[in-house]
Amino acid sequence: MTKTNYFRHRLDEELDEMAAGYIGSWAEDKRLIDIDIRVNEAHTLMLYKQGVIRRNDAKKILEMLKLAREDWRKGKFEFDREDIDVHIATEKYVIKSGLDIGGKLHTGKSRNDQVATDMRIYTREQIVDILELLLDFISSLAELSNEYKGDPMPGYTHGQHAQVTTVGYYLLGYAQGFLRDVDRLLNAYDRVNLSSLGACALVGTSINIDREYTADMLGFDGIIENSMDAVSSRDFVMEVLSTVTLIMTKLSRMAEDLIDFSTYEYRFIRLPDRYCDISSVMPQKKNPDVLEMIRASAGKTNGLLIESAMGTLRLSTGYSKDLQPIKKNLCEAVDIVKPSITLMEGILKGLEYNFDRMREVIEENYVTATDLAEFIVQNKDFSFRESHILVGELVKTAEKQKKKLKDLSPDEISKISANVLGKDIVISKKELEEATDALLSIERRGVTGPSPVSIERILKSLNPGIKKRREDIEGIKDRLKSAEERFQKTKDDVMG
Amino acid sequence: MTKTNYFRHRLDEELDEMAAGYIGSWAEDKRLIDIDIRVNEAHTLMLYKQGVIRRNDAKKILEMLKLAREDWRKGKFEFDREDIDVHIATEKYVIKSGLDIGGKLHTGKSRNDQVATDMRIYTREQIVDILELLLDFISSLAELSNEYKGDPMPGYTHGQHAQVTTVGYYLLGYAQGFLRDVDRLLNAYDRVNLSSLGACALVGTSINIDREYTADMLGFDGIIENSMDAVSSRDFVMEVLSTVTLIMTKLSRMAEDLIDFSTYEYRFIRLPDRYCDISSVMPQKKNPDVLEMIRASAGKTNGLLIESAMGTLRLSTGYSKDLQPIKKNLCEAVDIVKPSITLMEGILKGLEYNFDRMREVIEENYVTATDLAEFIVQNKDFSFRESHILVGELVKTAEKQKKKLKDLSPDEISKISANVLGKDIVISKKELEEATDALLSIERRGVTGPSPVSIERILKSLNPGIKKRREDIEGIKDRLKSAEERFQKTKDDVMG
Amino acid sequence: MTKTNYFRHRLDEELDEMAAGYIGSWAEDKRLIDIDIRVNEAHTLMLYKQGVIRRNDAKKILEMLKLAREDWRKGKFEFDREDIDVHIATEKYVIKSGLDIGGKLHTGKSRNDQVATDMRIYTREQIVDILELLLDFISSLAELSNEYKGDPMPGYTHGQHAQVTTVGYYLLGYAQGFLRDVDRLLNAYDRVNLSSLGACALVGTSINIDREYTADMLGFDGIIENSMDAVSSRDFVMEVLSTVTLIMTKLSRMAEDLIDFSTYEYRFIRLPDRYCDISSVMPQKKNPDVLEMIRASAGKTNGLLIESAMGTLRLSTGYSKDLQPIKKNLCEAVDIVKPSITLMEGILKGLEYNFDRMREVIEENYVTATDLAEFIVQNKDFSFRESHILVGELVKTAEKQKKKLKDLSPDEISKISANVLGKDIVISKKELEEATDALLSIERRGVTGPSPVSIERILKSLNPGIKKRREDIEGIKDRLKSAEERFQKTKDDVMG
Amino acid sequence: MTKTNYFRHRLDEELDEMAAGYIGSWAEDKRLIDIDIRVNEAHTLMLYKQGVIRRNDAKKILEMLKLAREDWRKGKFEFDREDIDVHIATEKYVIKSGLDIGGKLHTGKSRNDQVATDMRIYTREQIVDILELLLDFISSLAELSNEYKGDPMPGYTHGQHAQVTTVGYYLLGYAQGFLRDVDRLLNAYDRVNLSSLGACALVGTSINIDREYTADMLGFDGIIENSMDAVSSRDFVMEVLSTVTLIMTKLSRMAEDLIDFSTYEYRFIRLPDRYCDISSVMPQKKNPDVLEMIRASAGKTNGLLIESAMGTLRLSTGYSKDLQPIKKNLCEAVDIVKPSITLMEGILKGLEYNFDRMREVIEENYVTATDLAEFIVQNKDFSFRESHILVGELVKTAEKQKKKLKDLSPDEISKISANVLGKDIVISKKELEEATDALLSIERRGVTGPSPVSIERILKSLNPGIKKRREDIEGIKDRLKSAEERFQKTKDDVMG
Repeated sequence: MTKTNYFRHRLDEELDEMAAGYIGSWAEDKRLIDIDIRVNEAHTLMLYKQGVIRRNDAKKILEMLKLAREDWRKGKFEFDREDIDVHIATEKYVIKSGLDIGGKLHTGKSRNDQVATDMRIYTREQIVDILELLLDFISSLAELSNEYKGDPMPGYTHGQHAQVTTVGYYLLGYAQGFLRDVDRLLNAYDRVNLSSLGACALVGTSINIDREYTADMLGFDGIIENSMDAVSSRDFVMEVLSTVTLIMTKLSRMAEDLIDFSTYEYRFIRLPDRYCDISSVMPQKKNPDVLEMIRASAGKTNGLLIESAMGTLRLSTGYSKDLQPIKKNLCEAVDIVKPSITLMEGILKGLEYNFDRMREVIEENYVTATDLAEFIVQNKDFSFRESHILVGELVKTAEKQKKKLKDLSPDEISKISANVLGKDIVISKKELEEATDALLSIERRGVTGPSPVSIERILKSLNPGIKKRREDIEGIKDRLKSAEERFQKTKDDVMG
Repeated sequence: MTKTNYFRHRLDEELDEMAAGYIGSWAEDKRLIDIDIRVNEAHTLMLYKQGVIRRNDAKKILEMLKLAREDWRKGKFEFDREDIDVHIATEKYVIKSGLDIGGKLHTGKSRNDQVATDMRIYTREQIVDILELLLDFISSLAELSNEYKGDPMPGYTHGQHAQVTTVGYYLLGYAQGFLRDVDRLLNAYDRVNLSSLGACALVGTSINIDREYTADMLGFDGIIENSMDAVSSRDFVMEVLSTVTLIMTKLSRMAEDLIDFSTYEYRFIRLPDRYCDISSVMPQKKNPDVLEMIRASAGKTNGLLIESAMGTLRLSTGYSKDLQPIKKNLCEAVDIVKPSITLMEGILKGLEYNFDRMREVIEENYVTATDLAEFIVQNKDFSFRESHILVGELVKTAEKQKKKLKDLSPDEISKISANVLGKDIVISKKELEEATDALLSIERRGVTGPSPVSIERILKSLNPGIKKRREDIEGIKDRLKSAEERFQKTKDDVMG
Repeated sequence: MTKTNYFRHRLDEELDEMAAGYIGSWAEDKRLIDIDIRVNEAHTLMLYKQGVIRRNDAKKILEMLKLAREDWRKGKFEFDREDIDVHIATEKYVIKSGLDIGGKLHTGKSRNDQVATDMRIYTREQIVDILELLLDFISSLAELSNEYKGDPMPGYTHGQHAQVTTVGYYLLGYAQGFLRDVDRLLNAYDRVNLSSLGACALVGTSINIDREYTADMLGFDGIIENSMDAVSSRDFVMEVLSTVTLIMTKLSRMAEDLIDFSTYEYRFIRLPDRYCDISSVMPQKKNPDVLEMIRASAGKTNGLLIESAMGTLRLSTGYSKDLQPIKKNLCEAVDIVKPSITLMEGILKGLEYNFDRMREVIEENYVTATDLAEFIVQNKDFSFRESHILVGELVKTAEKQKKKLKDLSPDEISKISANVLGKDIVISKKELEEATDALLSIERRGVTGPSPVSIERILKSLNPGIKKRREDIEGIKDRLKSAEERFQKTKDDVMG
Repeated sequence: MTKTNYFRHRLDEELDEMAAGYIGSWAEDKRLIDIDIRVNEAHTLMLYKQGVIRRNDAKKILEMLKLAREDWRKGKFEFDREDIDVHIATEKYVIKSGLDIGGKLHTGKSRNDQVATDMRIYTREQIVDILELLLDFISSLAELSNEYKGDPMPGYTHGQHAQVTTVGYYLLGYAQGFLRDVDRLLNAYDRVNLSSLGACALVGTSINIDREYTADMLGFDGIIENSMDAVSSRDFVMEVLSTVTLIMTKLSRMAEDLIDFSTYEYRFIRLPDRYCDISSVMPQKKNPDVLEMIRASAGKTNGLLIESAMGTLRLSTGYSKDLQPIKKNLCEAVDIVKPSITLMEGILKGLEYNFDRMREVIEENYVTATDLAEFIVQNKDFSFRESHILVGELVKTAEKQKKKLKDLSPDEISKISANVLGKDIVISKKELEEATDALLSIERRGVTGPSPVSIERILKSLNPGIKKRREDIEGIKDRLKSAEERFQKTKDDVMG
């Protein structure tokens, strides 16, 4: 053999060097190497079990794979530019033991099914990681929600004061929202954790392989039956990327809120210094860099999603190199979402609240105007629309006089009502005060809305919900662990 | 009241006319009006049940809503530019009966919770529609898969001939892929079919409402408990849009294949004329316009997904007008995916296959080279890599001589092997022929891969899978129908 | 002829009805019909001039086209579902005069070059419109900038108070930014205003046409020479869409600022009521709906850009139906950007500023800390980094004592400096006051930065810049107008 | 000073370690370090010239910057995680010479204006690089176009045979298309090459700086006058990213064509082996991996564009950390487009054409049907639509009889015409043959379209156009070089 690259025998030229760098995926494959070796081991065990290769061959190959893993961990696994990807590099390592034995590793297996298998293992590991981070975060949100269940804050719609809510209720809404993403990831897991191995290049193989066996060894819950589907599809990645962007989008909204709340204008919260940066010029600055980066990173994950979509758009069926960037996109998205969750949790735990300022804002503006409108409906025989019209006029009047609503006189109110609606109203000072009081506003929400009792009630069902999902994840991990043990035992048995 | 628009009492000016067109959502709201009336009816029944409004008021309001629906159906429901959206228009219609009674419709209800509720109902209806179209399509794929289970076609990777597959197996792969999207939509349904009604503007209401009751009347399976979450979140739309893009991306790949297959160069299929268009200049042209549009429309739905993501990126919590375009995006996506599925099904059913041409292509090119390599592994004591190197050289040689693989002489092969691998091989003419035969190639796949027995085996589990999902959808529809009956009965009872 | 649709003679079946709706572009073609007729007229005149058709034929065709235009304006131009697009519909209208004469309209012309030509005319018209709106807007910004050149406002980085700026300077920055978009559109115009007509379906025609002649008649500045390029390329649309998104992104940032500035927390501005909407529930609300929609619409135009990109990604050369949605995307983008500019201009002109509040904020927070740091550098022999460290400590101290910087005592400052830097500093009360004064801060900027003199200086070059671009646009319009006159005269000559 | 990080004096805590990694930009800043040092040098020279710092201080700082550059080149410039970015790291390096002198580097300069300045220099360098690669590529296309000007190939629309074109004409279309991108980049250059330096954090500085001077030293053609605009805007990056995506989209279409043309089904071209990869399983495979990656990479650059757009969407004015990822996106886009151009050029130069196969395809299918239709129009007194109908019927008939058009008998044609149009036609065998001949078809295009004379004519204006742009680029480079020389001389003068 005069060719240096015995994979390219069919071609007359070596791969162009710039081309090798351009199509290679080593940068992202580095994080797949351990997985790739595992997949090769499982495949080898299966070939032996099926009688496709002899025990001694299997032993030799497994030995080489073990060495490869050790070398990798020691930073001694070297690869050539022409290797392009982890699969070639690993096989070449194994073939150091000879083309006659090492050359059997690739029997009935292709890079096409292997990269899909590697990615499915990597994806499931990342799902488990993200799920655990997310549930920790949700637990923190639930705890903080309980802690701040009685602290009124202005609620916003259209960026303007809407009605009174509580800090606890605000946080609780996010806890419940993120829990939906937990469910989405759990749903996705079922579609991810299926083995592509044995699909070979496109249509399986005439070699007598056992797909269920390798699937079991590698902890998969089943196989992707159609081999063309198995090597062509990346919808399992897209589904995870979609959920990652949903998580990041929620974090981005939360970050926007916290950045606003931490400004001088709002002064609702004080961000922990350790999550802020300074200005190299302006000595007074304390910049919410981490929150800004979380906010911006939602744009990045959305971009990765759309890039991945473009990777398969108008692409004919069957593996094509066009699918490769999706692997990288997944890695990048994972690198964004994991620290984003952790950092947001750290920030929320380290916040200092300025409840006085929130109360001040609630009282000075007209945040309880709806409470007054509803009070009138419940007590004065006005329809809601009538009451809405009346209170609208009251706000306009109060604003022009730079007054609070409760400082309008009953007479004035009566006059305005007659004028606008042709309808009398008798409302006392005390009624006015009570109807527009912030704490009473919350209390009036009863068992729904932002009141402490409502929050407590919701937490009573939320906390078991969190626990249930934790158990689901433990179940997944247990299944993976026991598969790994079976796998290890089988390897040991063969190695003798 | 001198104001023409009694909603704007708090403001000094009417809405600018260009602004009204700019922020209005009438174009898309037209498809929500029936739903919106239903939601108003349910809310009215609840207000009466809770004692918030009197029976006579409830009757009057229900009567007006009924008239509104009738007028709408007759095309007589007129709206002003200043109405902005369906919610204002409906309330204004009801208030024609008087501000004192009609003005009660909006008690304890906001446009914020109502638009979310309307969208959830619309979304669930669309999910059911898409699910039914998709399952019909999958059933057709399964049937066609069975019909063409023994017809060999060249399989492609990298757009090049890879190995022999069958038409049936190709179609089956898509059937299985689309079934995952069915499951995704079913998973999404559970997160969509929860009521936002009663969340009011942001924090619920002090009016004594019953959220569970309206949820039940409207066929929801539960409520979104946190009111801030209920009015701020659009992740339920995003999840559906994500799945729609997955469906469209698969269709786009299928369309790409069929367009290729229908060219003169491939000549594998003949597209039904009724799905093709002509050229206004080139008399011979028959253009696959429908397939091209399906292919391109995946770009559109991906765009709608990303637009919707940008709708909430860096957006503070609480309803903002920024959320409105998401409603329109959903409508557009639905209008794309539904005909796309139906048209693709029609095209697939109307295809004429040119099996002779496919056989010709398989035989003239080297599509069965892998079969030969695997034959050598199984019979000649070569490792796979050795065999791969050898067959690679054989292909190169045959190509240069413009020969088929089976036309290489055993001697030549032996010489090449010795030369490249330093290893002898004795392979007979007959072995060569059998190893490279297309039909035998398929047969050798046994119970996995593109063989007829494999397809039959898969269909045996796929068909019950399809049936199971059909039952799930019937279950959903039954629940919705019985809710509707309860709703109707309650209305009748109140109306007397 | 038994076929109802004589275009489809080559095919055996009529177009499927759902398919016709799916691939048809009537919705967007409605705005192209007038242009399409013009293009047909120019083509007809050219065919006559070249001797391809006789004068009587030309007259008849021009007559029918005139009728078509009149019918269209009266709403009487009817089209069938099978017409698919404006080009077929127009030709069918002309052929009402007989297949022998009307059938000559399409000689040497295809829908492929015609749709590209129509789009180029439409695009150039839209560019001119947008340019005029944009220059009006920039002029308003420049005027407002001059009006508010001396009004201090806090400048922000990272959403936090950075340094003192002026309202005028803030607005001026946008004027200069938008002027770059004007230049981009002017650059794009040169690449848009080239004729595709005569490229025919793909490779031109053997008919003796004159491409330069029709280009001239239609006001184009030249032709796209390569016919394959002419029918395949849509980069001219992409370039315009890109610039539209740049405009919208700037508007989106401005909208974000104004929404923030109009909150109770900032209270810097009061939005004109006519650009705000109310809440149907919360009587006190005044919602910045128009600004929110501008903000969100940047997401839409970005989406349209990416959709259009996906329309050509991985698409083989030559016209394909995949290009059609780009036409629609362009129309939608134009419908967004035009009112967005006008509405933003209206809002800015109608703003009421609360300068007192801005001063208050500047004085109460540490917005002039950098001024103090620079004062120390300039007067006390501290390096900037030393000064930055010192003032950083001063801010920390002042904040803890709830003091302003100017209220720190010289002694305290001296002690802190010694402590932190091991360096003495003597700074008087008066120095401290002057260094941290907002108006002096602006004044110190001299001829650069947010000072009135700087703004006046910049306006002295900006205003001629605006004028220059207005003249460019007038030049474009004059050229188009004189082409139109030549065109009209030629038509009249032929019609006799 | 007890603080290890003297930049953070205003804060009580060090930056969280995970946060530092999360917000840091070292990975991409590595390619900016040389530029950053240059900017610091220019700023130092200016401070000295303006009398802000003394000559000895300037010398010391310049010395340290020189050492920093040398250390960097030797790989000895180390940075801490807390450095976050290149600007901090460089200043810290300089401050090793003492806080009193090194601390003067940052006088009147902020990271905000510096990062914008660095990016503008980096962007202009990349524009020049891309322009040169692009013009080389266009020159190659022009040469190849000339070489293959007479070689007929089938032209495609809708992926189907449309009309006859030539290889030269196909390539020429791309040459002309890419030349538009050259112009776009040249237009963009004018908006990129303006200095942001001196804008400082947001509003300039009270230090007596000279913005024009540093702009000149650094080779800028002017300054961004408004400092708020200068630090907030990234539209210059977006414009370049937009053009990069236009380039990549064209490459993606070309790649799609070449991949198709290289299949067994087309067999029009043979790809150079050095740009292809093999299959690890299928011995016969030769995969167009490089073309596939080019095709897919257009999706990546589009994604980077949209990510960058999302970076500024709904973002308030002024620098925010949200802008940082745009820097990274630009770097990634540049890393894609540059090798993509080079590799495509390599592939095109190495292609082997199979002209026989192209001729075969043209003759066997009905690619010249339009020529026949036009022949009839020109010679038989049929309107084009009549002729189109007739030839459409002829194709249908020929196809059913598996004949070529020229093999239809004159009688048959006459009969069909009478039947379909009620119109006689007498067409001879010879006319039929000539009208449908491929080479004659090309010839008939005359001075427009895909004929050799037309290509020669276009090249006569294209080549000077290429030359003109080359001169423009040389002009740019000369200006940059002479600025650099002035800069170096000034440095030498100060250093003595």
